[in-house]
Amino acid sequence: MRPGPAETVPILDALGRPLAADIVAASDVPHFTRAVMDGYAVAAVDTFGSSESQPAYLTVRGGVAMGAAPEERVGPGDALRIATGGMLPRGADAVVMWEHTRESGDVLEVYRPVAPGENIVTVGEDVREGETVLTSGRVLRPADVGLLAGIGVTEIAVTRRPRVAIISTGDELVGPEEEPGPGQVRNVNQYSLGAWVRHLGCEPLLLGRVRDDADQILSLVRRAVASAELVLISGGSSAGARDLTRAVVECLGEPGLLFHGVAVRPGKPTVVGAHRGVPVFGLPGHPISAMVIFLVLVRPLLERLLGISPGEVGVKVLARLTDNLPSQAGREDYYQVALRPAAGGMEAVPVFRKSGLVTAMVRGRGMVRVAPEREGLEVGELVEVDLLA
Amino acid sequence: MRPGPAETVPILDALGRPLAADIVAASDVPHFTRAVMDGYAVAAVDTFGSSESQPAYLTVRGGVAMGAAPEERVGPGDALRIATGGMLPRGADAVVMWEHTRESGDVLEVYRPVAPGENIVTVGEDVREGETVLTSGRVLRPADVGLLAGIGVTEIAVTRRPRVAIISTGDELVGPEEEPGPGQVRNVNQYSLGAWVRHLGCEPLLLGRVRDDADQILSLVRRAVASAELVLISGGSSAGARDLTRAVVECLGEPGLLFHGVAVRPGKPTVVGAHRGVPVFGLPGHPISAMVIFLVLVRPLLERLLGISPGEVGVKVLARLTDNLPSQAGREDYYQVALRPAAGGMEAVPVFRKSGLVTAMVRGRGMVRVAPEREGLEVGELVEVDLLA
Repeated sequence: MRPGPAETVPILDALGRPLAADIVAASDVPHFTRAVMDGYAVAAVDTFGSSESQPAYLTVRGGVAMGAAPEERVGPGDALRIATGGMLPRGADAVVMWEHTRESGDVLEVYRPVAPGENIVTVGEDVREGETVLTSGRVLRPADVGLLAGIGVTEIAVTRRPRVAIISTGDELVGPEEEPGPGQVRNVNQYSLGAWVRHLGCEPLLLGRVRDDADQILSLVRRAVASAELVLISGGSSAGARDLTRAVVECLGEPGLLFHGVAVRPGKPTVVGAHRGVPVFGLPGHPISAMVIFLVLVRPLLERLLGISPGEVGVKVLARLTDNLPSQAGREDYYQVALRPAAGGMEAVPVFRKSGLVTAMVRGRGMVRVAPEREGLEVGELVEVDLLA
Repeated sequence: MRPGPAETVPILDALGRPLAADIVAASDVPHFTRAVMDGYAVAAVDTFGSSESQPAYLTVRGGVAMGAAPEERVGPGDALRIATGGMLPRGADAVVMWEHTRESGDVLEVYRPVAPGENIVTVGEDVREGETVLTSGRVLRPADVGLLAGIGVTEIAVTRRPRVAIISTGDELVGPEEEPGPGQVRNVNQYSLGAWVRHLGCEPLLLGRVRDDADQILSLVRRAVASAELVLISGGSSAGARDLTRAVVECLGEPGLLFHGVAVRPGKPTVVGAHRGVPVFGLPGHPISAMVIFLVLVRPLLERLLGISPGEVGVKVLARLTDNLPSQAGREDYYQVALRPAAGGMEAVPVFRKSGLVTAMVRGRGMVRVAPEREGLEVGELVEVDLLA
């Protein structure tokens, strides 16, 4: 999958969105040599050997105004008052900090030597003209927005938000605004998946729920494929409903069904297909299973559609397990965990809840993977925790 | 400071925003006992003692339709086909997984016993009626949005976004869209602070820049106090400009200046005041110093204005330092660090850059504090890293 098209937005609105192109500095920053301390602009050589008991004596020739090029030149034995951020005058190559001087009349006593270059920043020391300061695929952070302002960039190209259509199927589903009757449940996945899609910087298209009827599902999925960059079908959780999703994806047309079933728990009965370049996922009906498969299979794809560089989003934290996590060889297992600090580092505390409970997914702060070659993880093991939102 | 007023928004729009009130479940979830596996609803006692070699024999009396109450009752020796999520019929107290049975005609062979309650979720097991499922001050995560849909909540009260006015002062400042002349620099802080304010869920009011002129600054600050819940003055970086900010805050009226100067590096020359209940901060001009003081002093205040519970936002990670971090006793020092995984856990790699460089603030992923009672931190020490955006 290649990143989607770009759009240009003001830098502040680009916060949290992925850059669609490298940002190259058009000029040096700073573009003049500036003081980084309050004090006096001097030729460093004039301060050599100075000390508290044997100060150097210089003549104060005035001051440097902020925001303008100083007209005065620092000749041998001269000093000019300068404030932090002031432009260094010709003839000066350092700034003596105000704290290390005493001025009386136009005579300046300097109590400490400075080296050439001390307490100044030279042209291009922060950013060089032509330098790539931020690369395509970076997700813009607050400090980045400041840097962009600093190099004179006020609008940038970011990847347009991919649209993700979400369809829920199941005879048992009612909307969250409805009172469910006996045997009925509210449509959780439309909202938890919608929120995840939005959290990742994509645009959720909530297409609502549809009964376990192949024709109805197929017609809605065709509409979704035509209007979105990715389609999620949150399936009925029963075997029959899953077969329905599979049949619909098979009907879609080339390439249709890619595979059915993944060696992942929770989330085994996942259906993956595509049509007209749009990936179509049949996710399990259980809210946690749907979320895990979304995070494990769909999230990386959305990051590619967004053009986000690997490692750019998400935080992985190493932590020690407080419990054993059972698994079977040949299968990936995912567990929700809470994180807490401990004496030797972070601890990962598994959230054990019965399968199918919605509350389990709100209690964890991160997710731990048990690799297929492992038959579980052991208490005290250092594991990588994928920090969730 | 108390949290600001609340506003009601649809649950999907509440993502990332703080709850202004506890969320209490109006009914049990699930409100009926449901199967969590595909299989057969049975009376557990009828399966006791069954095995591969000595199966229990039951009679299949039909199936449970999804989304409706089953009309059939499971009598002794009976079984009803049931799918995951289906409502358990009267007389049944467990579900035998499909994998552990064989059906032929209406005879079901059961190869493994189930205990009462096995493979089912009972009424209220996920959420109890009257239970507080999410508490005021929680910042809504994607899974929370799903939970809210599940308990029939479609709109919730969140704290309104506090407005934060940002004023930049300094004769040397030009806008980011301008070409700076000699001695001039672009206004970075307006944008880095504005982005931080937005990142935290507040609304930045960018009031632009003003020259180092007490009357002009005062008039702009008065306007800011009247229209925002918090005011940031990003000061000129020179001593003279700092005194100007202090003088303006003193002029504001009761209580005016609260204190000037903090034992924090970077950011020592910070001015803190208030007027008409609106906190007013005079931040240093250096972008990194301004950001550090914003994060250390202003961020906690904004979190209180937002009503966010302690520990709810931000991630602290324990990591081992790869370098010594110098400091002085009696002063808090803050260092930007990058994070990387290592054999024994995470490592914190300090970003050492000259003071005043904008690029330093984009290279760190987190911040480490050296407590005032410490004279620096040592390589190999386990430190807490405040993960930034």
